[in-house]
Amino acid sequence: MLEMLEMLQMVSSVDFSALLRAFVYSRTLASSPQFKNCAVLGTIYGQDAIVSLEKTHFDLSPNGAGAGAGDGNSLDLSTLIDLNNISLIQNNDVYFWSLSLLNQSLTQTPSVKLNLIYPATSQHIKKFDAGDSIIITETPYYYSKYVKPYIETMKGDRIKWVHNILYNNAESDKVIIKKENDFVLLPDMKWDGKTLDNLYLILIPYNGKEISSIRDIKREKHLDWLISILNTIQKEIPIHYNHQINANQLRIFVHYQPSYYHFHIHITNLKNNGLGNQISIGKAILLQDIIENLQNNIDYSTRNITYFIPENHQLWSNTGFKQEYETQDNSND
Amino acid sequence: MLEMLEMLQMVSSVDFSALLRAFVYSRTLASSPQFKNCAVLGTIYGQDAIVSLEKTHFDLSPNGAGAGAGDGNSLDLSTLIDLNNISLIQNNDVYFWSLSLLNQSLTQTPSVKLNLIYPATSQHIKKFDAGDSIIITETPYYYSKYVKPYIETMKGDRIKWVHNILYNNAESDKVIIKKENDFVLLPDMKWDGKTLDNLYLILIPYNGKEISSIRDIKREKHLDWLISILNTIQKEIPIHYNHQINANQLRIFVHYQPSYYHFHIHITNLKNNGLGNQISIGKAILLQDIIENLQNNIDYSTRNITYFIPENHQLWSNTGFKQEYETQDNSND
Repeated sequence: MLEMLEMLQMVSSVDFSALLRAFVYSRTLASSPQFKNCAVLGTIYGQDAIVSLEKTHFDLSPNGAGAGAGDGNSLDLSTLIDLNNISLIQNNDVYFWSLSLLNQSLTQTPSVKLNLIYPATSQHIKKFDAGDSIIITETPYYYSKYVKPYIETMKGDRIKWVHNILYNNAESDKVIIKKENDFVLLPDMKWDGKTLDNLYLILIPYNGKEISSIRDIKREKHLDWLISILNTIQKEIPIHYNHQINANQLRIFVHYQPSYYHFHIHITNLKNNGLGNQISIGKAILLQDIIENLQNNIDYSTRNITYFIPENHQLWSNTGFKQEYETQDNSND
Repeated sequence: MLEMLEMLQMVSSVDFSALLRAFVYSRTLASSPQFKNCAVLGTIYGQDAIVSLEKTHFDLSPNGAGAGAGDGNSLDLSTLIDLNNISLIQNNDVYFWSLSLLNQSLTQTPSVKLNLIYPATSQHIKKFDAGDSIIITETPYYYSKYVKPYIETMKGDRIKWVHNILYNNAESDKVIIKKENDFVLLPDMKWDGKTLDNLYLILIPYNGKEISSIRDIKREKHLDWLISILNTIQKEIPIHYNHQINANQLRIFVHYQPSYYHFHIHITNLKNNGLGNQISIGKAILLQDIIENLQNNIDYSTRNITYFIPENHQLWSNTGFKQEYETQDNSND
């Protein structure tokens, strides 16, 4: 096994091309016309493989491919697209629609990100193969009968990485703020760590071990603490980034259901509005709204929470939740 | 003028390329790394011009470029990307990251949509030049001092089209359900009216005239009515579409701030997760959450509401709201 890993780690671009040439398509796992990405399942030498493709963005940066020589603020269309290959579809009044080709080069302007998982396990496949989501209303009854027991199964080794960040200095080179016994603030995996427009940070509190989700948030115990966390986020993040981003440009929120059950807070740039379901109603909840609700005596342990969940989510499909929910009358009265 | 228009309408692809070659960049109006599109402002022969670019999606359809010959269900990676141009960035365990180039051709697989507006007016430019948004917390004080008076200025002729739908049978050929004195349900302009995956409907109630926004929703007056509206939506829409869409696939929500101040409810397919800010926290609010809050005695007229707003939004920049807000300490305590 170790030998195989070492061999894989030494794979060259040439070998990598050979792997991809051996790819035999089985089916499409995901495809987004909005985000211009897709994931396809297939086999390579008889073993499962997942190829995911995503088009790169246009490079409009001052030093990017589109920049004219010697002028930091200029942009030359011909470096972005191939002006010799344009097909005009229609023209009406001042409006012109056309199709064209990219000016692409592997070193300067690569046009596709290609990721491969090989060999892929059924867990890998399941992650891509999310299936459709449905929207459900979780009553306190469903929470205590299905969700709470499910959450208990998701602890321990599954969130060892959180423990490692809090206590074992994992990812310590990336940590932005660490307040002993309070929280660690660090970049989310989805962020490139550079482009502030796409800023995505995660705040992991030490007491998150006792707060599996928003259901465990209590006014008496957590309201003042959440207010101080919100103020710290709004004060410290602009300072850390030399005020290139302001407090009023931060979207601060939690997820329900979250992807792991140690309480944590997401912080993104408002400009990053292409995060899809990550920031949408039915999954994301503004930290400000949680605070406002607590101040108005809303009790998250006893209220109904409406959210969407992938139909093949373990909590939904493997616990009995789906079976009972679908035999009940869940109309809203 | 007419002559010039006629001339433009006869523009060929060659002339069109010449127009684009004459484009001199001024500044970037919009750029989305997620959606892989951008709009840049410049001049052509001294007149304003807007070029918008968007990358096309991968063609994974059975008859698309990626399909193997003679096999409706196959897909050949080499028709999507150039397997001779791959650069492996990293390999760790079973994970490989790489960059590559597209296999592109103008007739079969064009890689860019390019639209031009020329000559562009200041109205055209403003539409693209939305500016950044900021997130603010609207207290009851700010609501009564700035928002309520602003809303009054947005009534009358500006929402005559709503009146026309309710009373003058406007768009009646498109109406899906009309319940006299209750509501009209019809497709939103953003929907193509066909693809159920992108379903987008609007429900406009007759009493919406008295409900400018969620701030006017009262438990005593509206809770039962909202519950009946929610149940009607969840029952009638699946029936209308022959159960090709189910109640648990509908995202049902309102906006604050809305784009017009006659109460209305948005209904989209959950699958349509590329709606960006339209369905995101800080603007959209699930109808189920409103009902749950009313049942828990939340009063929308007296609570704080946190939302994002474009910095050049009239309500924010032209009413004095911004000036007063920014001189206050709006920290969260």
